[in-house]
Amino acid sequence: MEPNGSPASYGYRMPGEWERHSRCWMGWPERPDNWRDDAQHAQRVFARVASEISKFEPVTVCASSQEWENARSKLPKHIRVLEMSMDDAWFRDIAPTFVVRDKSSSPGYDGQRVAGIDWNFNCWGGLGDCCYRDWSKDILVARKILEIEAVPRFPEDMVLEGGSIHVDGEGTCLTTEECLLNPNRNPNLTREEIENRLMSYLGVRKFIWLPRGLYGDDDTNGHIDNICCFARPGVVILSWTDDKSDPQYERSAEAFSVLSNATDACGRRIEVIKLHIPGPLYMTEEEAAGVKVMNAKYRFAETRLAASYVNFYIANGGVIAPSFGDEKRDREAYNVLCSAFPDHEVVMIEEAREICLGGGNIHCITQQQPA
Amino acid sequence: MEPNGSPASYGYRMPGEWERHSRCWMGWPERPDNWRDDAQHAQRVFARVASEISKFEPVTVCASSQEWENARSKLPKHIRVLEMSMDDAWFRDIAPTFVVRDKSSSPGYDGQRVAGIDWNFNCWGGLGDCCYRDWSKDILVARKILEIEAVPRFPEDMVLEGGSIHVDGEGTCLTTEECLLNPNRNPNLTREEIENRLMSYLGVRKFIWLPRGLYGDDDTNGHIDNICCFARPGVVILSWTDDKSDPQYERSAEAFSVLSNATDACGRRIEVIKLHIPGPLYMTEEEAAGVKVMNAKYRFAETRLAASYVNFYIANGGVIAPSFGDEKRDREAYNVLCSAFPDHEVVMIEEAREICLGGGNIHCITQQQPA
Repeated sequence: MEPNGSPASYGYRMPGEWERHSRCWMGWPERPDNWRDDAQHAQRVFARVASEISKFEPVTVCASSQEWENARSKLPKHIRVLEMSMDDAWFRDIAPTFVVRDKSSSPGYDGQRVAGIDWNFNCWGGLGDCCYRDWSKDILVARKILEIEAVPRFPEDMVLEGGSIHVDGEGTCLTTEECLLNPNRNPNLTREEIENRLMSYLGVRKFIWLPRGLYGDDDTNGHIDNICCFARPGVVILSWTDDKSDPQYERSAEAFSVLSNATDACGRRIEVIKLHIPGPLYMTEEEAAGVKVMNAKYRFAETRLAASYVNFYIANGGVIAPSFGDEKRDREAYNVLCSAFPDHEVVMIEEAREICLGGGNIHCITQQQPA
Repeated sequence: MEPNGSPASYGYRMPGEWERHSRCWMGWPERPDNWRDDAQHAQRVFARVASEISKFEPVTVCASSQEWENARSKLPKHIRVLEMSMDDAWFRDIAPTFVVRDKSSSPGYDGQRVAGIDWNFNCWGGLGDCCYRDWSKDILVARKILEIEAVPRFPEDMVLEGGSIHVDGEGTCLTTEECLLNPNRNPNLTREEIENRLMSYLGVRKFIWLPRGLYGDDDTNGHIDNICCFARPGVVILSWTDDKSDPQYERSAEAFSVLSNATDACGRRIEVIKLHIPGPLYMTEEEAAGVKVMNAKYRFAETRLAASYVNFYIANGGVIAPSFGDEKRDREAYNVLCSAFPDHEVVMIEEAREICLGGGNIHCITQQQPA
């Protein structure tokens, strides 16, 4: 199932997240050194996210052997629950990046419409910067998913997480320098070499580089999916704050400036929709105390949470977005998303803070498989 | 995915093994207290069996998290390798028994053609008689397979292993009293109650009970699939010996007598094809010494092996059968199988003795999923 040559050479491209999905993939959180109170809250919220997505498209949740029965019992019957070992449950970053092509368009690999990219993964920074000390199970997740689905696999030795790239499906890739050019990922690749790899893997031809990701998003070194995303070709949603004293302000303003001066692969100017962040929010004493000290990054009370509404998932006809208990900003976010996605039903997940405590949000724990 | 009512009430029946398959399921052996030399020989032979079957139909091999990469590396690429935990690798007995129905014929469960029965399992006899001390992972295998395939599941609390029944797909069930009426399986069910359950689960209406299974087949308490099987409706193949001093003789003669006087569900007399057993064969010192003493039944040198050629798998257009290094009997078996299956290609697996050392053979490690 492993063709030679790059996906683009076979006519594949990464579709926009709003293009039709056959399925959503998720993991199941369990590590007590990242998810407080033995992951019981995180599991409840993951189950909620899975349930909401499953109203729009089929969902598969993967859980370890130890957790399979627990996951099965906590998820609705129509959600498929498979056994799979993992080091943590960030399927955006460890599941394959799926690519598609028109059946008629391309010669080569078995004529299959969907394929998957299996990037290299170093736990968001490798030894020294990793979020936990052993990621040997994470590394196999993409391959196992492609095996289950009998989808061709393109292995790639460049380190990359799915959450560090966004595409519009029409040739444009949106990403951050803070992450992709970080020496803890691919120190031997220049910006140009990285662009070349992404062109041949994602089928893109134009890059928009934001300098930095969200303030406080140190776990991922500023993943794009926590600060900015496409709503459709030519339109992005950018995490914003009006508070000039917030260190987020200069990051958002800088991104706004880049986006305002950018054109996409089709030559369009970019329309930027601002979406105000909640809070600022901080980890509480109780929350930090619930995380066991073992083999993962320590979690401290008073840490600024990298909380952002753009970390949502676009399902078939639905947008599943986090809310944070900040009434004013939650309501604003709901309204902004409803108007950005007039053809989608927007669903806000109330306890999404629990996912944020673990270092990401709804987009980070999901991965769409195109139809 | 769990309907109320029995499979038969929805129009399902267990098909004959020669009816079209969509796939064959197998496990991956690893326990060093059942498979000598840390399962290295067994893994080689399982891989060989999987490869041969894959020439006739798709094959999925399930391996534990620890063994997944090893299994993946030892199997051809076109075989799908999935992660699944298990206590041992006897998929005939722990995977679901699949049933089918004509789409047009039956109302009820989602109109799906294929469903699976998830029997209860007590490790071939429960506490005291079990082959190993913990079978908690085995118990979940059938459910996990049905989950992967999104096939409806019929849970059943009666203890039954797939290897203890054979059907002709036309209403007849062939089984042994030694196993099904053994008090270590379902002490609270009478023969009539067991028949009633099997009628409502397998869609059969007539039973042929052989008194005993193969001599020496103590692990399974005389599974039918090691002594006798259907070649097609109205025709069975029976393990035989001409040696009246062999304790197998009276078992085979007794079975022959029962079969000769039986009619099947369609009123046909049964044609019996005799297939001479190899050997007799015994476990060597070296073989016994390679099995670690841990949590499984001990293996002793000089033990008579329950070696039989009827423990084969019928694939789409192929018959995958064991050979044992007994030249004369191996050749006889090949000839008998070729003439019993004129439309199938017969493939003999040379090192099948390795599977026999673990307590079964090719039929015991495979499970067909009907098309």
